Amino acid sequence: LVSKLPHVGTTIFTVMSKLALDTGALNLSQGFPNFEPDPVLTDLVARAMRQEHNQYAPMPGVPVLREAIARKTAEVYGISYHPDHEITVTSGATEALFAAITTVVRPGDEVLVFEPAYDSYVPAIELAGGIPVYVTLTPPDYAPDWLAVQEKITDKTRLIIVNTPHNPTGRVWTRDDLNQLAALVRDRNIFLVSDEVYEHIVFDRNGESNRAHHSLMSHPTLQERTFVISSFGKTYHVTGWKIGYCLAPNELTAEFRKVHQFVTFSVVTPMQYALAEYMNRPEPYLELADFYEQKRNLFLQAIAGSRFRFTPTEGTFFQNVSYAAITDEPDYDLAVRLTHDIGVASIPTSVFYHDRNDYHILRFCFAKDDDTLKRAGERLSAL
Amino acid sequence: LVSKLPHVGTTIFTVMSKLALDTGALNLSQGFPNFEPDPVLTDLVARAMRQEHNQYAPMPGVPVLREAIARKTAEVYGISYHPDHEITVTSGATEALFAAITTVVRPGDEVLVFEPAYDSYVPAIELAGGIPVYVTLTPPDYAPDWLAVQEKITDKTRLIIVNTPHNPTGRVWTRDDLNQLAALVRDRNIFLVSDEVYEHIVFDRNGESNRAHHSLMSHPTLQERTFVISSFGKTYHVTGWKIGYCLAPNELTAEFRKVHQFVTFSVVTPMQYALAEYMNRPEPYLELADFYEQKRNLFLQAIAGSRFRFTPTEGTFFQNVSYAAITDEPDYDLAVRLTHDIGVASIPTSVFYHDRNDYHILRFCFAKDDDTLKRAGERLSAL
Ligand SMILES: CSCCC(=O)C(=O)O
Ligand SMILES: CSCCC(=O)C(=O)O
Repeated sequence: LVSKLPHVGTTIFTVMSKLALDTGALNLSQGFPNFEPDPVLTDLVARAMRQEHNQYAPMPGVPVLREAIARKTAEVYGISYHPDHEITVTSGATEALFAAITTVVRPGDEVLVFEPAYDSYVPAIELAGGIPVYVTLTPPDYAPDWLAVQEKITDKTRLIIVNTPHNPTGRVWTRDDLNQLAALVRDRNIFLVSDEVYEHIVFDRNGESNRAHHSLMSHPTLQERTFVISSFGKTYHVTGWKIGYCLAPNELTAEFRKVHQFVTFSVVTPMQYALAEYMNRPEPYLELADFYEQKRNLFLQAIAGSRFRFTPTEGTFFQNVSYAAITDEPDYDLAVRLTHDIGVASIPTSVFYHDRNDYHILRFCFAKDDDTLKRAGERLSAL
Repeated sequence: LVSKLPHVGTTIFTVMSKLALDTGALNLSQGFPNFEPDPVLTDLVARAMRQEHNQYAPMPGVPVLREAIARKTAEVYGISYHPDHEITVTSGATEALFAAITTVVRPGDEVLVFEPAYDSYVPAIELAGGIPVYVTLTPPDYAPDWLAVQEKITDKTRLIIVNTPHNPTGRVWTRDDLNQLAALVRDRNIFLVSDEVYEHIVFDRNGESNRAHHSLMSHPTLQERTFVISSFGKTYHVTGWKIGYCLAPNELTAEFRKVHQFVTFSVVTPMQYALAEYMNRPEPYLELADFYEQKRNLFLQAIAGSRFRFTPTEGTFFQNVSYAAITDEPDYDLAVRLTHDIGVASIPTSVFYHDRNDYHILRFCFAKDDDTLKRAGERLSAL
């Protein structure tokens, strides 16, 4: 059996989480909370199962959940997506990304990918027969160079993948970034997939109160060509429930659903009902940024005296730190060594570049209880 | 956006279930039970959520579930699959089918499909750039014509999709069918995907006690080239939980997981723990054939005096019936009309043929409570 994904190995998330488990290290690698969801939410799942919600959900998702998503989206962004034909519930953001890319990309099409890039984008492009074209973002600020983007756009460019707030760097795109992008795609038949799973985790910057996630849906000319993807996993601390969704205009959603229909057909029913009910309550996402900003600050304080260098992350629950002042080791080796030697697991950021660019930066996930963050900080400070 | 699946509309299952709902008809169309799973099983999910199983499962599935699947497979078929590298938990059988087909099929490859065929196979083949080649099975017995199969096999044949027990016809392949298939693929580099989600729903035939599901894994030369796919939905009455799995030799599983990793990454965690725990108990699948045979017999008795003609289904929870003695209408029209006029929804079988062959046969799902089956039978008998 000749591999259709010859370059793919086991994801770094699996590798580092396993190593953390095997060595008993504090696991600040894979992006998931080490704390639990609201018991109200899990009780709602138990209730949904008792209320006979155990058989196939409708293919696009249960209506009450799609309605709740529409309501929330209108509240937060002021944009209306119709639950019947513009919102689709998926098996996590991963399936939504896969289905959107598969919907749009045909053999030979070029797809612009900003790297460092989350590791599922490129395999999905390759399985669709597309050609990834890389735009490289570099530390410290990872700002897109729009002239470089323009140069990479050709008549074959079919899709651009956006991710804001950005994993792994924590960069949050500005309104100006969106305008620059809009100017470049304006007269072209280019689609957009926007991975916005960290939409509610955006922080104050430069001491100013300027929290703002600029969703591609809120841009007047980008919205019509964009599949906006989000998820409940990061917002409600249930990464293991694997429920995400895709928002896209009618015509795009119609094609997206054809693919979704045959990739997974539908999504775990009782969790959908529980989430719909939960979203009728005062929304916990309103406090999410505060919650994680406190954790980010705690972690940064804990490594303030260390030899790591960093700028506070703008969004997501990831903090990137430079270790250039400490050692010259490749980031992968260092991540493995720190797991073994000091018991702190992280993610080397070179894995997110197709050429494995190593800027001597590690990514730490601070979606952890305060004690874990303090202990990790102490260990890192002793280096 | 030019469609990558131009021939695909809304699945017949969605269409008929919606029509049944809108008209208040008895829904014997889409294949799901109208009764509930064992409360022990749903309680185990509630417990798993309390036991902090709400974050990402490992990509191939939680180890205890893979071990339980390995144990069951060894018990039932006497075949060993290693949980670490030959068993993968998926988002339902649908995702397993999609991932297996995507793993194997390259642009230009031919894939043999026996039709009538479950509607997800061909779109998955087409998205992979493959070419479906059809082998037509016809009523009343839907036996494969092995000479016809041989004639369709070429140097480009990459994959053959098998489905036993068969949806929609209920046909169960014999040991001889497996031998015939084995003879045809022996000297060729052809892979097999075997959809066996109804593995535990096989009935006595011709008044004899000869229940036997012949899994492709139990055939000595087929096993090594086959992705065997099953699911918990049909076996434990939880079609809405969307948990299936794929069994395949080491090398095949390695490639399968590369695809699975980027299609959905992992599967709803608390349900996986619950199923693993549940499988440690005396297995309810042991009684499943009895349970559904009683329902099949009840339904057949209820339509015994009708003008429908049928042979008792050999397996699955579907009964096909011929209405040729009653009317000449196209099966699709009749299925819609019966839903409106007498309040019984069914599935027209022509939708499972790429040329919409209409043999005037409807498929009824008897995974329904006894009262529903009796009432449906009465209404059908009045025709
Ligand atoms: C699907 S495992 C990866 C989780 C995650 O989003 C990350 O760690 O970046
Ligand atoms: C995924 S909906 C279809 C359910 C089913 O297997 C059938 O009705 O054939």
